[in-house]
Amino acid sequence: MIVVKAGGNGNIDVAAVCGDVAELVDGGEPVVLVHGGSHETTRLSTELGHPPRFVTSTSGHTSRFTDRQTLEIFTMAVAGRVNKLLVERLQALGINALGLCGLDGRLLEGKRKSALRIREGDKVKVLRGEYSGIIERVNVGLLKTLLDGGYVPVVAPLAISYKSEGLNVDGDRVAAAIATALRADHVVILSNVPGLLRDMADESSLVTHVSVDEAEEYLHRYARGRMKRKVLGAVEALRDGVGQVIIADGRVQRPIRRALAGEGTVIAARR
Amino acid sequence: MIVVKAGGNGNIDVAAVCGDVAELVDGGEPVVLVHGGSHETTRLSTELGHPPRFVTSTSGHTSRFTDRQTLEIFTMAVAGRVNKLLVERLQALGINALGLCGLDGRLLEGKRKSALRIREGDKVKVLRGEYSGIIERVNVGLLKTLLDGGYVPVVAPLAISYKSEGLNVDGDRVAAAIATALRADHVVILSNVPGLLRDMADESSLVTHVSVDEAEEYLHRYARGRMKRKVLGAVEALRDGVGQVIIADGRVQRPIRRALAGEGTVIAARR
Repeated sequence: MIVVKAGGNGNIDVAAVCGDVAELVDGGEPVVLVHGGSHETTRLSTELGHPPRFVTSTSGHTSRFTDRQTLEIFTMAVAGRVNKLLVERLQALGINALGLCGLDGRLLEGKRKSALRIREGDKVKVLRGEYSGIIERVNVGLLKTLLDGGYVPVVAPLAISYKSEGLNVDGDRVAAAIATALRADHVVILSNVPGLLRDMADESSLVTHVSVDEAEEYLHRYARGRMKRKVLGAVEALRDGVGQVIIADGRVQRPIRRALAGEGTVIAARR
Repeated sequence: MIVVKAGGNGNIDVAAVCGDVAELVDGGEPVVLVHGGSHETTRLSTELGHPPRFVTSTSGHTSRFTDRQTLEIFTMAVAGRVNKLLVERLQALGINALGLCGLDGRLLEGKRKSALRIREGDKVKVLRGEYSGIIERVNVGLLKTLLDGGYVPVVAPLAISYKSEGLNVDGDRVAAAIATALRADHVVILSNVPGLLRDMADESSLVTHVSVDEAEEYLHRYARGRMKRKVLGAVEALRDGVGQVIIADGRVQRPIRRALAGEGTVIAARR
């Protein structure tokens, strides 16, 4: 069982990702494909006259402020456009893909974070009306039913709150949560860098094989920005029973194959 | 088993439809909800600077010209926005809704119509690059798996071509095709008129109970515009084993309950 996370920033080679997914599935390997949609959401928001607002939390974490209107645009972009284009492409490769988001059958359930404490210059503000959250429950039964039926689930990063509101959730954390729930052997997280870097500006500073303990140390010492969430998701998944998380380059040909062959940062539960 | 078709023109009371669906499902009745999205697609297309183009075929049928860009906007509007808003609302009512479009698991498969013969004034033109089609196959296994699992399928009117291209398909025909495939007892088609009218301008000219043979006659004598497709879909479904099709008013409170109680045009396989 392999969970793949691809896309979000527009730099991922979708054709290459789908080609690899098709080959794995044809070879008998069950795959769940999780995607992002940040780039598409920014573009659609701007086109619709509701440009994105990125805010920095008091803990230094940068994210999109997701008010209700942004949530609905995000839903169109990720559950409408990105999700169905991936399904269409996989279907054209003979793979019986089926697209879902976390609202569908309460696939991904979590707690809504309705207010953000943000920093603007020297000031701390509270922004209300946020629709994002952290996944706490995965409907494993639904995923298993689909996988048993021969479908390849393609999952858009929306969750549902306990009050049944749509939530914008991080795609890397979606992959980690699904992999944990399914006790996946491998999670491949494709990114627009070769993996975890000691120095963000230097692609040759790639961290190759590390244990989960070492990954936690790297998390605090080296990981920045979005990479922080990728490593955090990886560490959580590995602590909860996933065999191996590989953070790898999504901009290359055969990105999943290369990742599984060890190109990128391989984080293992045990070394 | 009841198949409900609601929405498309923006006049349907979504809260009322979802309330009735929830009550039926809570009462143990399996329901499939099919929706439209024409109104939303027109709005989004216009906002994105690609306004809709409606064309009249040589046979007098008016439809949206769906080029590739329109298909992608249509997908965002119907499979992204309308579908997920319905799922969110049903989930808030405690119903385990799961949204799909016809691309997902090849739920609705059909033949692409890639060129349209249209009439413009006195001229006949051929428009190429069309992405629409007619459904020829329904993945009944997938619907049954979901229904057996306790999910309420919410279906957006996109199909997949035999070459795995997304297709814009008519929501009323989707409802008819799904009802036929599932041998549904009832199909409720909610519209922005009280049912089939002898005189489009006069809502009191409602046709109440008719047989399928009479419906075919009405089809040729009275049905105009979109109503033509609704009756055509109804006739096809009834000829293929569906018990009863009710074309009813979607603008009222408790629209599905009223339809099932006989308010609207009830077309029965036998009188």
